[in-house]
Amino acid sequence: MSEADGMRLYLDDFAAGQRFATAEHEVTAAEIIDFAKRFDPQYFHLDPEAAERSPFGGLVASGLHTLSLSFRLFFDLRLWEEAILGSPGMRELAWLKPLRPGDRIRAVVEVLDVRRSATKPDRGIVTMRHDTFNQQNDVILTAICLHMLRAR
Amino acid sequence: MSEADGMRLYLDDFAAGQRFATAEHEVTAAEIIDFAKRFDPQYFHLDPEAAERSPFGGLVASGLHTLSLSFRLFFDLRLWEEAILGSPGMRELAWLKPLRPGDRIRAVVEVLDVRRSATKPDRGIVTMRHDTFNQQNDVILTAICLHMLRAR
Repeated sequence: MSEADGMRLYLDDFAAGQRFATAEHEVTAAEIIDFAKRFDPQYFHLDPEAAERSPFGGLVASGLHTLSLSFRLFFDLRLWEEAILGSPGMRELAWLKPLRPGDRIRAVVEVLDVRRSATKPDRGIVTMRHDTFNQQNDVILTAICLHMLRAR
Repeated sequence: MSEADGMRLYLDDFAAGQRFATAEHEVTAAEIIDFAKRFDPQYFHLDPEAAERSPFGGLVASGLHTLSLSFRLFFDLRLWEEAILGSPGMRELAWLKPLRPGDRIRAVVEVLDVRRSATKPDRGIVTMRHDTFNQQNDVILTAICLHMLRAR
C-alpha cells in the first residue's frame, strides 16, 4: 500500500463487531535477538544456545517484541491517518504462547466499543480486542487496546 | 553491572511494598524514529516536520517504544536470572504523557502482590506496578505487570 493509500477512517466509521485482519509476518532469529539487545536482554531472548536450557527450550521473542510486531501489522492496515489522536492505554494484555524463530504471526482486531467523548464531542475512544495468532492458529497474545480518534 | 552480577532473586525474596528504582535514559530523536520505522510508522513518530502539525505538536515516541524502553531500564536491574519463567501479561497500561526527544526517563517498580501457585508450588506470580517518569517527574506511563518466578 502506498503512502497515499489507507482507509482514513474516523470515529464515526467504527462500529462494534467490525473485524480487521492483518497480513502475516515470518519472524527470524536475527530479529528476535536484535530486539532483545535493545529492549529485553534476558538470555532466552538473546542467546539461542543458552535458551535451549531455559524454561522455553529454545530462543523466544521478548513479549514486548511480540506486542510491537503485532501492532506493526495492525498499523500497516492504515485504518486512520488524520483521525488518530493517540492511545490512552491497553488492558488485559496476555502472553499465551511464545513466539519462536520461523513462526508466522498475524493479528485479528475486533471493535468492541465506540464511545464519543461527552466533554469533547469532536473525538472519542474506539476499544479493540487485538488477537495475535501463529501459523498453527494458536492465539499467542491478546490485548484490549484503546485508540482516541477524531469524529468527522 | 557485569554479566556475572544481578540480584538473582526468587519468588520467596519478593514482598508487597518493595520498590526498585531504575537508572535514567535520555531519549534521542534518532531512537524514536528508528523504533517507529520498525514497529509504529505513524507520522508523528517518524517525521519531525510533519509531527509539528500533529496533535502532539512535535515528534513523540511510539507508546510501544516508551513501554519497551521502560522495561529495558527495569531488566537492567537484573533482579532475577535463573528464577524467571516469563510474564503471563499486563493490565491497566496507561500512556499518560508523550515521550519526546531529549526527555530522560526512569521507572519505579513496586511489588503489589506475591502469590505462590496452588497447583505448582515450585513457582508463583509477582505482580508489580510499573511507573515511568520523565525528567519533570511526571508519570508518563503506568502498568501492572505479572512475572512468573521459581521459588527457591
